[in-house]
Amino acid sequence: MTYCVAMRLAEGLVFASDSRTNAGFDQISTFRKMHVFEKPGERQLVLLSAGNLATSQSVISLLERRAGSGDSNLMNTQSMFETAELVGQTIREVTRRDNPNGAMSHVDFSCSLILGGQIKGEAPRLFNIYPEGNFIEATEETPYFQIGESKYGKPILDRIIHYRLSLERAYQCALISFDSTMKSNLSVGMPLDIALYRRDQLTLWFRDRVTDQSEYFLQLRQQWHQGIQSLFASLDPPDVP
Amino acid sequence: MTYCVAMRLAEGLVFASDSRTNAGFDQISTFRKMHVFEKPGERQLVLLSAGNLATSQSVISLLERRAGSGDSNLMNTQSMFETAELVGQTIREVTRRDNPNGAMSHVDFSCSLILGGQIKGEAPRLFNIYPEGNFIEATEETPYFQIGESKYGKPILDRIIHYRLSLERAYQCALISFDSTMKSNLSVGMPLDIALYRRDQLTLWFRDRVTDQSEYFLQLRQQWHQGIQSLFASLDPPDVP
Repeated sequence: MTYCVAMRLAEGLVFASDSRTNAGFDQISTFRKMHVFEKPGERQLVLLSAGNLATSQSVISLLERRAGSGDSNLMNTQSMFETAELVGQTIREVTRRDNPNGAMSHVDFSCSLILGGQIKGEAPRLFNIYPEGNFIEATEETPYFQIGESKYGKPILDRIIHYRLSLERAYQCALISFDSTMKSNLSVGMPLDIALYRRDQLTLWFRDRVTDQSEYFLQLRQQWHQGIQSLFASLDPPDVP
Repeated sequence: MTYCVAMRLAEGLVFASDSRTNAGFDQISTFRKMHVFEKPGERQLVLLSAGNLATSQSVISLLERRAGSGDSNLMNTQSMFETAELVGQTIREVTRRDNPNGAMSHVDFSCSLILGGQIKGEAPRLFNIYPEGNFIEATEETPYFQIGESKYGKPILDRIIHYRLSLERAYQCALISFDSTMKSNLSVGMPLDIALYRRDQLTLWFRDRVTDQSEYFLQLRQQWHQGIQSLFASLDPPDVP
């Protein structure tokens, strides 16, 4: 399984992904699920992937191989919308190649992608691209998308994330969302890939790989866990006889 | 969808269930998912149900109709283990009746149940009964079970619930787990049914129906939400340049 989250906020974009991949419990590997394409000063794109690893790797490989050549590719699209169309089209191409008989197979070939970034002349944009290749775009009211094992980490996002939150704080909230997920589910695991993008910079502001040795993460995890326990202990007693 | 949680702690048992049932988004109803069977001083049983409503209603109806008559029924089983076997057998009976061709149907006929309680002469016990009729039992290390839409509300249980926690505090934690779930998912809804059982009392200690007008719940929900936001605001700033 996988967990990825991305946010589009007033200040810019936040991306975070785990790196655990498993086919059953005895075949666990680490794969990067964050893929960065950039031409500093002109375009900055980040893709996060979840779902069938063969499908998502093929999609990324094709996008990489074609970048910079041909009619429409990741490095010459005119808008983020056109980029999302291109990615969706590539998902459909790979799914058709690997699963020509559609529903006949028992294997789930589907993959989901989050695409975010900025192309000069446009504002930063964020898209959630479905396995069918269609997509939706984040708005001020719905500033974040999740793919993969998303439910454990959603409540904290719903309580904290809003469009005007700073990138630093949103990054911190994403780390807590991952911590909650990893505490409750074994299929999401460290290290985490992080990318922060400041609006109009057209290059990434901050990029990090957070491991289970990262001092800041260990400290945040402990501070949050103890904070939750103190908060719980401070609640008014329940209404029972 | 549904969300139910039950805990077996040193002091006794905690049960909580929501009451929303939906078949699509335009057919939403309220059904009680908590079913109580008791003979005060002799046995106290609580069943929580999730999954296909037709299946779970039939299972409960058959268990009710047969209670008190026949060889093995809910009111004369000799142990909680035997009671779990009886419930599992009834699930298999209903599933065979409604879905005789097994995997041939596209409808999901499955239902999950949580059974908890105490029969005189035994300690309180708690079982998670699967759609196939087999079951597992809660232990000191794994003191709670969830069925239905369980992921959103799991992180707070994993941070707070342990075997020595008081029933009052565990009840409070269950309410927070429901609040987090309902904030992030529309298919789980009020009112909530609550039952608390104190070890060896052989009758329920506290029973309540929490509505969205319940003063204590509204106060707890607000206190928790504000507490989380203050806790988040108090964290050390993130480790970015």
